[in-house]
Amino acid sequence: MAERNRGFFKALNLLVLNVVSSPGSGKTTLLQKTIERLAGSARVGVVVGDLETDNDARRLRTTGAPVVQVSTGTLCHLDAEMVGRAIGAIDVRALDILIIENVGNLVCPAEFDLGEAHKVVILSVTEGEDKPQKYPNIFAAAGLMLLTKVDLLPHLKFDIGTAIEHARRVNPGIEVMQLSAESGAGMDRWLEWLGRGAAAARRT
Amino acid sequence: MAERNRGFFKALNLLVLNVVSSPGSGKTTLLQKTIERLAGSARVGVVVGDLETDNDARRLRTTGAPVVQVSTGTLCHLDAEMVGRAIGAIDVRALDILIIENVGNLVCPAEFDLGEAHKVVILSVTEGEDKPQKYPNIFAAAGLMLLTKVDLLPHLKFDIGTAIEHARRVNPGIEVMQLSAESGAGMDRWLEWLGRGAAAARRT
Repeated sequence: MAERNRGFFKALNLLVLNVVSSPGSGKTTLLQKTIERLAGSARVGVVVGDLETDNDARRLRTTGAPVVQVSTGTLCHLDAEMVGRAIGAIDVRALDILIIENVGNLVCPAEFDLGEAHKVVILSVTEGEDKPQKYPNIFAAAGLMLLTKVDLLPHLKFDIGTAIEHARRVNPGIEVMQLSAESGAGMDRWLEWLGRGAAAARRT
Repeated sequence: MAERNRGFFKALNLLVLNVVSSPGSGKTTLLQKTIERLAGSARVGVVVGDLETDNDARRLRTTGAPVVQVSTGTLCHLDAEMVGRAIGAIDVRALDILIIENVGNLVCPAEFDLGEAHKVVILSVTEGEDKPQKYPNIFAAAGLMLLTKVDLLPHLKFDIGTAIEHARRVNPGIEVMQLSAESGAGMDRWLEWLGRGAAAARRT
């Protein structure tokens, strides 16, 4: 089913990202700011997974982007079939980028291919540098790690270098960016990465 | 197996807590400070669950407390059998309180009774007020919610009242405490709660 999604996305020249993090890493705020900043240059749609509530979908819809909420109940991750069903509810053919905001969980989503081009793992700097070692599967599976909430660094004992070193130990090829959706720091580089990814997907 | 653990703990007059939170909520720092502050008044042992690494166990052992690390591999929670096996490695008979630090995950641990007296859910104030609504099972199952990292409140948009309201909506009886292991704020109330719980366990 993941391969079917992948083929479908490829046929539509769509860049698809599977965004995974702990609860409360700031995924939704980041996506909100990302969609706002990309307005006019790329059309973004979102599939949001949560056990309960459609809070995130409602927040994301304020950007004007098409958003589908998937309520997983007690299930700790999205799977390819849920995503395949969910995208039926929006006009994916009109999109350049589809972002799948997975259930807030660093464990279970690592095991489930949704048909995405890349997994993006978010680690907020409030969480501690050793998370890549403690949850190695998701950091090994991700193409990109976003270190978020860097505006809080002055108030924390968090060493960016150590966090990156731990991530590279489980995944030497992982790309790393530091940003703050709140202050806007580092957002340009992330938006350029998305732009390059969308352009590459258009050429395939 | 959870009931067997419960009977075993009861026979030993042991207070057993199952501590659950997101990755990076500050569980280990809180436990470290808790054990240090209880030294002389209560003997505390810890079972720590993590997918990989024994970082947390090593940090906790610096307190002098007996600590067992359980590596769950790809498993997203501890179960009663793992706990039953783990406590064989320490002298539980010499303890007043056993704290089980579960895998950092707000989803899966909610479903697994380990034989504990109480589940304690930790929500750090960096995570957002709506977590109880989004992960209702664990907040419904917990007897106590600890709002941690309150020293960071001045730098965040986090409304304590809203977070408590959300928690009480899924669990009207949940007890709530605010604290910071870093600054020490609110620690006294938490230590008193533990002391009362240990005294009650001694009387059963």
